[in-house]
Amino acid sequence: MTTVQVNTPGGAYPIQIEAKRLDKLGQSIPDDATAIALVSNGTVAAHYRERAAAALAATGKRVVYIELPDGEAHKDWQTLNLIFDGLLQNRLDRKAVLVALGGGVIGDMVGFAAASYMRGIRFVQVPTTLLAQVDSSVGGKTAINHPLGKNMVGAFYQPIAVEIDIDVLSTLPAREISAGLAEVIKYGLIIDADFFAWCEQNVQALRALDRQAVTYAIQRSCELKAYVVSQDERESGLRAILNFGHTFGHAIESGLGYGVWLHGEAVGCGMVQAAELSALTHGLSAESVARVRALVQAIGCPVQAPDLGEAQWLDHMQVDKKTEGGQLRFVLLPVIGKAQCEGVPSDALRQVLAKAAVPVQA
Amino acid sequence: MTTVQVNTPGGAYPIQIEAKRLDKLGQSIPDDATAIALVSNGTVAAHYRERAAAALAATGKRVVYIELPDGEAHKDWQTLNLIFDGLLQNRLDRKAVLVALGGGVIGDMVGFAAASYMRGIRFVQVPTTLLAQVDSSVGGKTAINHPLGKNMVGAFYQPIAVEIDIDVLSTLPAREISAGLAEVIKYGLIIDADFFAWCEQNVQALRALDRQAVTYAIQRSCELKAYVVSQDERESGLRAILNFGHTFGHAIESGLGYGVWLHGEAVGCGMVQAAELSALTHGLSAESVARVRALVQAIGCPVQAPDLGEAQWLDHMQVDKKTEGGQLRFVLLPVIGKAQCEGVPSDALRQVLAKAAVPVQA
Repeated sequence: MTTVQVNTPGGAYPIQIEAKRLDKLGQSIPDDATAIALVSNGTVAAHYRERAAAALAATGKRVVYIELPDGEAHKDWQTLNLIFDGLLQNRLDRKAVLVALGGGVIGDMVGFAAASYMRGIRFVQVPTTLLAQVDSSVGGKTAINHPLGKNMVGAFYQPIAVEIDIDVLSTLPAREISAGLAEVIKYGLIIDADFFAWCEQNVQALRALDRQAVTYAIQRSCELKAYVVSQDERESGLRAILNFGHTFGHAIESGLGYGVWLHGEAVGCGMVQAAELSALTHGLSAESVARVRALVQAIGCPVQAPDLGEAQWLDHMQVDKKTEGGQLRFVLLPVIGKAQCEGVPSDALRQVLAKAAVPVQA
Repeated sequence: MTTVQVNTPGGAYPIQIEAKRLDKLGQSIPDDATAIALVSNGTVAAHYRERAAAALAATGKRVVYIELPDGEAHKDWQTLNLIFDGLLQNRLDRKAVLVALGGGVIGDMVGFAAASYMRGIRFVQVPTTLLAQVDSSVGGKTAINHPLGKNMVGAFYQPIAVEIDIDVLSTLPAREISAGLAEVIKYGLIIDADFFAWCEQNVQALRALDRQAVTYAIQRSCELKAYVVSQDERESGLRAILNFGHTFGHAIESGLGYGVWLHGEAVGCGMVQAAELSALTHGLSAESVARVRALVQAIGCPVQAPDLGEAQWLDHMQVDKKTEGGQLRFVLLPVIGKAQCEGVPSDALRQVLAKAAVPVQA
């Protein structure tokens, strides 16, 4: 078993990475928990609910199951409220523990439910997508979407444990693996050039879910994310670099409608755009831009941005949370492995947006 | 001007108490705020919106106004969402500041909106009811109601300032003053016997809104609440004593339907019931119970609990957040000025509930 420790002012917790970790979930439940609520969606539940519930029931505690509809389109208040309904109908108290079994949508919603139910109860992340394992389950960002913007309502709230079973990746569609790998290579791009090079060399092993390659990719991603989050839990400085590619990516998701592209696909494409912008404003070399584009393509993500039209691009980027006082800020790379967050001249931005010409790539 | 300082792990802030404080609201807005959203309801806005907005606009910053429907019945997700709608439609960013102008419902909802919008922005409490001035605006509890329970969804989230204008009490109905005084005498009962005696001696001056008496009552209440909250921000121990009378009170509010009795009225009545329970389980003297009843009556609150029926009483008390592992816990007084939180024998509880015989007292 591999353990990565996360330390933030809001809480310290271990990330456990292991094959068949699902069968040991009971280990993450504190002795004083009064009950456990397992939350998942039908798609994930069909594969893993029984094993997860059995592992939790082995603690001897009451286990309540709450099922949410599947998909980013349901990451809203109505669905969040299903969790509160289930918790209150079953009379779970402040010492109950929530367990999020699923991808980023489940993790974000269960995390926000845990942050808000009775003003805060404990929760465990059990991410079942690669994207959630390397990104959203670590660091304490929780949220739901608002019709006017993604992740606009939420909390910084840390889990008490993150439990990663690498074997669950085998039931994922290939497209979800590609989307998760986008966030993996992001860590290399913003903070660890060696890891980016390692990804270039191991891209086929990663896509084939080679157990050793996948374990290392998850471990290194979690270590890098844990480092950044420990420096800046509430995104007042360094943490913003984790949003590399995300300002473009969020605009794609929001412009096409949530769920048309996977989050990781939008971020993959957004990283290519952010690299192009970095070349114009921060001297990122043409060779480096080509490496970014080549690796995004190699992991199976789109590299051609959809044609939203300049006005819609700017509109959707404006409400992104990185805006301050109306000025658009971007995470930019002077070189691969080093990121900074800055405002950009609108000419450069328009030049990048002009390249977006393909309607929708599914 | 009187200032009471609050220090908690989640934030330190001043409570400013002063006549005509409303005209100085701009002082509470940090220089780096990018915009201000003033949130109120129509009832309060009719009296004070213009003055508050003018004082905020004097900072030179953009001021957006968001109006919510009035009343506890609207303390729900739909109304909370009106705040998010307004913030997003006006493109307020992470450095914007929310200002809650109103009673406890406005304060609780704006506080939770501030805790959740973009995962947390700053907010200022401007409480316009006595109850909010001495209780809900201080200490960082924010929440909305759920159909299955009061304040079930929320956050511990501290304001950056609390601005109390004692002159606004002059436009309150007498019933609201009585409800606020219930929380004032609560502080005496749980932690300061001298202050309870002072309230007994000054009850007429308080009800007549004598400026000196009211200022002292608010100051002392805020000092006592600030002390308790500084010891225990997240209600894991001492803070629970602030719920004296509230387990009964919440059951009354929930059983009759939110808003039929004012929160303070329900708490006033609940304190009489909690005193009766304390006599049965912790030896509170008959004379002390009589003093509690007499002062609750003297401030103008009901002392006779409504007849919800034992089953409904128990049902509504069960989902109260003080429940742990199914056992009902109460805040109880061995003597006036000293409180402790404990489970009680169900016989004693039933004996107190049996006295509840009046249908509805409006």
